[in-house]
Amino acid sequence: MNGLYKLSELDANLVEALSNRATELRRGATPARYEGLALGLLFLAPSLRTQASMQRAAGLLGLDLVQLTGSSMWKLETGDGVVMDSDAAEHVREAAPVLSSYVDALCVRSFARFEDLASDLADDVFQGFAQHSSVPVVSMESALWHPLQALADRATLDQLKVSTRAKLVLTWTWHPRSLPHAVANSTVCMAAQRGMDVVLACPKGWELHEEVIAQAKLLADASGGSFEITNDPGATKDADIVYAKSWCSLESWGDTAGESFKKLELRDWQVTPDSLSAGARFMHCLPVRRNVVVSDAVLDGPASLVQRQAENRLHAQTALLEHMLSGPAGCESPLQLPAEVGA
Amino acid sequence: MNGLYKLSELDANLVEALSNRATELRRGATPARYEGLALGLLFLAPSLRTQASMQRAAGLLGLDLVQLTGSSMWKLETGDGVVMDSDAAEHVREAAPVLSSYVDALCVRSFARFEDLASDLADDVFQGFAQHSSVPVVSMESALWHPLQALADRATLDQLKVSTRAKLVLTWTWHPRSLPHAVANSTVCMAAQRGMDVVLACPKGWELHEEVIAQAKLLADASGGSFEITNDPGATKDADIVYAKSWCSLESWGDTAGESFKKLELRDWQVTPDSLSAGARFMHCLPVRRNVVVSDAVLDGPASLVQRQAENRLHAQTALLEHMLSGPAGCESPLQLPAEVGA
Amino acid sequence: MNGLYKLSELDANLVEALSNRATELRRGATPARYEGLALGLLFLAPSLRTQASMQRAAGLLGLDLVQLTGSSMWKLETGDGVVMDSDAAEHVREAAPVLSSYVDALCVRSFARFEDLASDLADDVFQGFAQHSSVPVVSMESALWHPLQALADRATLDQLKVSTRAKLVLTWTWHPRSLPHAVANSTVCMAAQRGMDVVLACPKGWELHEEVIAQAKLLADASGGSFEITNDPGATKDADIVYAKSWCSLESWGDTAGESFKKLELRDWQVTPDSLSAGARFMHCLPVRRNVVVSDAVLDGPASLVQRQAENRLHAQTALLEHMLSGPAGCESPLQLPAEVGA
Repeated sequence: MNGLYKLSELDANLVEALSNRATELRRGATPARYEGLALGLLFLAPSLRTQASMQRAAGLLGLDLVQLTGSSMWKLETGDGVVMDSDAAEHVREAAPVLSSYVDALCVRSFARFEDLASDLADDVFQGFAQHSSVPVVSMESALWHPLQALADRATLDQLKVSTRAKLVLTWTWHPRSLPHAVANSTVCMAAQRGMDVVLACPKGWELHEEVIAQAKLLADASGGSFEITNDPGATKDADIVYAKSWCSLESWGDTAGESFKKLELRDWQVTPDSLSAGARFMHCLPVRRNVVVSDAVLDGPASLVQRQAENRLHAQTALLEHMLSGPAGCESPLQLPAEVGA
Repeated sequence: MNGLYKLSELDANLVEALSNRATELRRGATPARYEGLALGLLFLAPSLRTQASMQRAAGLLGLDLVQLTGSSMWKLETGDGVVMDSDAAEHVREAAPVLSSYVDALCVRSFARFEDLASDLADDVFQGFAQHSSVPVVSMESALWHPLQALADRATLDQLKVSTRAKLVLTWTWHPRSLPHAVANSTVCMAAQRGMDVVLACPKGWELHEEVIAQAKLLADASGGSFEITNDPGATKDADIVYAKSWCSLESWGDTAGESFKKLELRDWQVTPDSLSAGARFMHCLPVRRNVVVSDAVLDGPASLVQRQAENRLHAQTALLEHMLSGPAGCESPLQLPAEVGA
Repeated sequence: MNGLYKLSELDANLVEALSNRATELRRGATPARYEGLALGLLFLAPSLRTQASMQRAAGLLGLDLVQLTGSSMWKLETGDGVVMDSDAAEHVREAAPVLSSYVDALCVRSFARFEDLASDLADDVFQGFAQHSSVPVVSMESALWHPLQALADRATLDQLKVSTRAKLVLTWTWHPRSLPHAVANSTVCMAAQRGMDVVLACPKGWELHEEVIAQAKLLADASGGSFEITNDPGATKDADIVYAKSWCSLESWGDTAGESFKKLELRDWQVTPDSLSAGARFMHCLPVRRNVVVSDAVLDGPASLVQRQAENRLHAQTALLEHMLSGPAGCESPLQLPAEVGA
């Protein structure tokens, strides 16, 4: 396993095994120790859960930590052939191999910048690191994908024995800002790969990118699940899992004012107790804006899985790093692959 | 021991035992090791001593570190029922339990914000973490209290065998900015709990909050000490210990311009060699503005205890964390409680 | 060895031994372990390589880390006798001994501030820490010197068996900003101490400080090398090593607009394939502005040593800290001094 850009690039059996290992770790299994190896954490975007849980995962695995934040380093350039006479002082073509020479794996967080849709769709910062590093590069959220969140969410569903054929509705919600697509993209693909009946519910114009939709359909076909899109906010009402998230319209990329105007009438795209049927569970990646994205009553009630999702970030990441580093350190991976694969 | 908000919430015997343990550690005693446990450090305010000494204390105790600063995470909301459509992206109701799931104790630094006196008097950020965390929460300075400074100062007085009946004068000093009350509150209560004769010297209008004064009096009554207030800047002249600190007037909370005007004539509230009698010692929590709060001659002379106070931050914190973590880790606390308690 | 301000303050034999040890570490030698000791890293200026490689070096040596950045601490004053009623809240006279009481060695990064030439020439921030600390203080780049870069560059030249009499040309390059002299000063002195034929090539008015030039000449005299200055940009064409760097004119210190105007016609001071003879190698400390300081073709071609230089930062620093800490920790230094010294 050579880094991780999106969860769905992993074989379905490996995803299942990583989820199972995360659950074992949650129940107290002892992680492998990789003393003498080092993990690089590069945060070009803010973070609470990811920073804290990656630091802790490194501690549990005995890894040395190398930590950098965007504010304490040089502004990065990613373009090819650029004459660097503006504000970027360092090119990813230098930064990536240099950091690679100090660590055994490099984790990078870099959000969509909303300056240029093409750059964000190319995921230029993450891909720059992935391409120019000599060690595995793991996304801690890029412009398009958040694989560690997806793996934690998958472990959460598995731990609670949510049926693989349950219905998961990812519903768009109103939000005062224009947010990236990474979690939304990752959620539909994770659920489709798990075999679930996945519904994307959003206002017209807020559909996810066509390539993501195509991927989710392919994953659903392979797993025996399904994927469809609706513009009906009431779609949550017969869901087993309601996953809430806001994201910006592809039609208004980088145009915050324009999008704000377009969504003036959409404030009731909010998850409230009325949005959920009896027995339905609520998910969100956090941070979440209370009484904007979801009402206090849902978040503080028994339907909410958000704390378990966040806790599983630690276990999922520990499982992933443990597996990824198992080769170079000479340890065997502690993963138990499903029987049909392990045989 | 379930976290720490202010030093005086601890039994007087425990405070004494922690101070003694800090002194043992200063003399080279070996701290307990808590490998496999993790300490969270959350800095929502700047820091030199606290950051550095907490990092080192964690190292000495073998703890994994999880470190976050306000600038690299989301702006926090603390209010109940708030519609979060402004700039705060995360509520302490999520942040506290999430961080709790990654660490075994959580330390939080959050100054008074001077936006709203009621919020600061409620110490809303620290209390939000304390209320919503599932692990012990330790203050690394909140709006109202700085218990780790108070414990280090207590250890400093004990190490130097300053009489428990010595006279400690906490004197207000002029300062170009409006500063919080945390150290001033903590100093008078620490000294009153130690049994000292405590005098608060400040200009009229700069008295500490009436509830703090009431607490200091109660602590003095219980310990056999005393507490009084004077507006005479000459009160330092017969003190054994002169503790200098600036803080803002409760009457001008958040009104920097108003307070600046009110204190135009108060620049000679500064500690100089003339402020101290022979044999008196000078204390300050640092950072200190030279030749504004205290003159070079005092700070660089033999009366100054500021370096020992700062060094004791490390030992006091190591002692406190060692004791606090002694339960969950299965180790016994290395504290020797005073005889009348240990019997 | 009590700290490090500039590489040339070390005996030539010690520099050689440290370079050799760096190469051993690069080849897989096991560093000494200093468990129980702590290293302080204080970053008052941005950094990618230095931060990351110092964190990793500490991990390899088993050191506890205490890390502070300028943005999370108080603004520092360095002047003597100053009335601190402006924006600096803490004096280096307090900060240095306080941090010294938490760690066993303190590393400081503080660039030239371009406010006042005299302060920068006095290297007031670094010297403040060096003077007031009770533990060794190591420069991670000060206003005038970058000894860790110089040691890594020395190790790079030694690893590649570049002749000690090879010709090294340090060439000034155009750059959109006004940059400090630390790397330029360190490079000419490192190469002169190594015995190389050193040429400083720069436009008229961009010569390095006369004291640095005098030092480089003395070092060259002692080593059997040479040092000269030219204003000819073509001087690189018969070099074995072309080291590129931009720095500001001493005549325009702090006057960015003035310098920008003066260098309007100097944009062709850029290293391109035409600047290098066959077999010449290219060096730069990074970060580097592509197609401004040096063209892509050079940086991505076989002449470029920049990745090895950056990787050697880790090994050189590990060697230096390992040697410096060998006394207090009771371990012997793993250094093999050259025969004429070791005898």
